[in-house]
Amino acid sequence: MKALVHVALKKTVLDPQGQTICRSLASMGYSGIRDVRQGKYFEIELENGATAEQVEKIAREVLTNPVIEEFTCDLEESGRPEADR
Amino acid sequence: MKALVHVALKKTVLDPQGQTICRSLASMGYSGIRDVRQGKYFEIELENGATAEQVEKIAREVLTNPVIEEFTCDLEESGRPEADR
Repeated sequence: MKALVHVALKKTVLDPQGQTICRSLASMGYSGIRDVRQGKYFEIELENGATAEQVEKIAREVLTNPVIEEFTCDLEESGRPEADR
Repeated sequence: MKALVHVALKKTVLDPQGQTICRSLASMGYSGIRDVRQGKYFEIELENGATAEQVEKIAREVLTNPVIEEFTCDLEESGRPEADR
């Protein structure tokens, strides 16, 4: 069983790292880029029977800084072989 | 138009940051966690008409270190896609 937690800066918070990537891409000749924002994500391998509430608790209390960040959680059953590694 | 690029360490590469989070969660009393792996993702806002090939080129040539990392790209018209990994 696997959970995917995405953590990103709130839209209202400046993302200098993303801006730097955006400018760099332009200066390197990659055209058509309007904006870049960078975030992080966590692939969490869970014991069977884990609930979405558990994952959300971890995301909220540990993985996210609520002052400047927001998160989304997705829980998936382990349908793929690599999930059993 | 938006693209979502996920970059993660290859499965064969050790992820000490993920391991630390995994151990920390256990020591903090969060049970049922088997493994954690951390990656990063980029939300790229594109001019209309951008192609999946363009995004893949940027992901491969700029955003990913091919020695230790791998990436996936998702192109969407608008809004945020469901996690597909």
